[in-house]
Amino acid sequence: MIKQRMFTPGPTDVPAEVLNEMALPIFHHRTEQFRKMFGAVNESLKKLLFTKNDVLTLAGSGTAAMEAAIGTLVPRGKKVLVANGGKFGERWAKVARVYGLEVDEVKQEWGTAITPEQVKAKISAGGYGAVIITHSETSTATVADVKGIAAITRDTDVLLLVDAITSAGALPLKQDEWGIDVIGIGSQKALMLPPGLALVSVSPKAWTAAESVKAPVFYLNLKAYRKSLADSDVPYTPAITLIRGLAKALSMIEAVGIEKLWARIAIMAKATREGCQAMGLKVYSRQPSDSVTAIWYPPGVDDAFRKKLKSKYGCNVAGGQDDITGKVFRVNHMGWTDPLDTLGLLAAVEYTLAELGAKVEIGKGVAAAARVLKDWA
Amino acid sequence: MIKQRMFTPGPTDVPAEVLNEMALPIFHHRTEQFRKMFGAVNESLKKLLFTKNDVLTLAGSGTAAMEAAIGTLVPRGKKVLVANGGKFGERWAKVARVYGLEVDEVKQEWGTAITPEQVKAKISAGGYGAVIITHSETSTATVADVKGIAAITRDTDVLLLVDAITSAGALPLKQDEWGIDVIGIGSQKALMLPPGLALVSVSPKAWTAAESVKAPVFYLNLKAYRKSLADSDVPYTPAITLIRGLAKALSMIEAVGIEKLWARIAIMAKATREGCQAMGLKVYSRQPSDSVTAIWYPPGVDDAFRKKLKSKYGCNVAGGQDDITGKVFRVNHMGWTDPLDTLGLLAAVEYTLAELGAKVEIGKGVAAAARVLKDWA
Repeated sequence: MIKQRMFTPGPTDVPAEVLNEMALPIFHHRTEQFRKMFGAVNESLKKLLFTKNDVLTLAGSGTAAMEAAIGTLVPRGKKVLVANGGKFGERWAKVARVYGLEVDEVKQEWGTAITPEQVKAKISAGGYGAVIITHSETSTATVADVKGIAAITRDTDVLLLVDAITSAGALPLKQDEWGIDVIGIGSQKALMLPPGLALVSVSPKAWTAAESVKAPVFYLNLKAYRKSLADSDVPYTPAITLIRGLAKALSMIEAVGIEKLWARIAIMAKATREGCQAMGLKVYSRQPSDSVTAIWYPPGVDDAFRKKLKSKYGCNVAGGQDDITGKVFRVNHMGWTDPLDTLGLLAAVEYTLAELGAKVEIGKGVAAAARVLKDWA
Repeated sequence: MIKQRMFTPGPTDVPAEVLNEMALPIFHHRTEQFRKMFGAVNESLKKLLFTKNDVLTLAGSGTAAMEAAIGTLVPRGKKVLVANGGKFGERWAKVARVYGLEVDEVKQEWGTAITPEQVKAKISAGGYGAVIITHSETSTATVADVKGIAAITRDTDVLLLVDAITSAGALPLKQDEWGIDVIGIGSQKALMLPPGLALVSVSPKAWTAAESVKAPVFYLNLKAYRKSLADSDVPYTPAITLIRGLAKALSMIEAVGIEKLWARIAIMAKATREGCQAMGLKVYSRQPSDSVTAIWYPPGVDDAFRKKLKSKYGCNVAGGQDDITGKVFRVNHMGWTDPLDTLGLLAAVEYTLAELGAKVEIGKGVAAAARVLKDWA
């Protein structure tokens, strides 16, 4: 009887409408029924990303999406600039090295993101084949200026690969207008699905660059997915049920309009920051993302907070990783999480902090958040 | 993408665990599988009502439960005292008249409930075969002193029939200890199920009284259900899926403990009253029930409030009936509705009132409710 709410920044809550769609009987993928559904999903994904590119769909995680892009598309024999400002930036550097790429890893202080100026200074020196950045670094809840960085790479032959795993569908992101070459996505975030789908949108410039790439991979070779997609098909057995759920989720998103959803998510993030600040808490990131918020624990509070928040109030939040393990908690704003859930979470945060002996005036943070959320509908 | 939350006082939200249980394949009822499940459900229902009585289960609404009890059990040739303080009390008087009973209908001002003193004054005059009261009158969100009234009837030969449709599972109710003869329940309230099940708990005293009753009904004749229940069976085709859901819902309730749930519901009701009062609103009832709260609209606000609350914020509340149509809204606290939902509703109430031009300080009611809800977990 403790209602569980997912405020983890992936997996996020899945709407009953999507779960029900996925509960319908399986059908075969080598059929007109599948190709029709898959073709429609692809059209919706293009709208979501504001792109004319085909968006490739693999059964895999967000990591599979990024590895497929790095392994298949990034030119060999040149340097790859990887912005590492957290766990995921760090991962893309590892992946690039696995593929024998020469990695120039720019380490950022956690809670900050690489700037367009930094990227410009690097690539103007020459010798780079690609830049890999994380739009919203989930581990630090920090947003990078993708638009500004794309403005630098777009008129060069350097590819820009963007990990948009916790940004696509949550933060403003316009692939073609901004000039992004590759976008990688996982299903379990703003798309309101269980994990299991990897999506990759590839620009014509990236496909051209890929021509010279002999990718040492089979399943993750995007060229095979591109070829099949021309017939609204897939090269290997697809996650039919998840794609069916994706069709439903995308139709729900389209019914509202993605820009309206971006605004709603931004308000939830603002309400969370201001609500927590009204409780005397501090936001972790210096460039906070609107898709996920990281908050410092106050003195004397540790990860016992998260356990109590879940067991007593059913609110699931994420903890910190590496150096900030036990020092922060992270809250999702993407997907099916709504402003009224967010308000409930802030009350539960107040109760839990008070129970752990922190000085909190109950209702103060909640009221501050309620004032911000007034404009959501 | 507007998440719908049911704050109507029935049907209430049904947990996914229960919906999933009901989504399992149908099985036949003339089987050991059914009898085993049905026997276990009956044991759980006894615990829920603190009774040794068998609790009869019919496919029907709460009205069917009450009609079955009135038609089958109430002695003929004597008067029936019916407390009418709202739409449901009014209905039981109508039902009693359909069965040719001589009805002494005590009309209460809406928002008040019949008192033990009133009942005592009436039945001490003699000639009564039964008293019918509504524990929690849903139309006025008003609670009656069932324990006090039962203390008067229990040592007489007058039966006490209690409409516990919005009280069983929500408000303190102990059938045997208090001395209640008949309790009627519907499934779509505190039991967290869709509508469709009528439950009737009958005391030995009521069965004895029923011996002389020739009920002019077949389907609703409780004697047939009693006979079958001796073999954990039913006389006519049961609502198998709803009973399966009931088994799950009761197991969830038992895991927490009903007395803990009563306390949680009472806190939600208190938070709703105090939150609304902090917004300058007034509680409708003079004896407010803890299972449902009715709130007066402020001047200048009408049922446009409910439409906006649903369409913009996904919060479904009920309106007023008869003379108070368009003058109040009613909020559920039973079942799967939880304190964090309640807090979200209060924020949505503030926003909606402000949009309709009422004077509201955003966050004030929410903060007041948050302070009350602090003690829920």
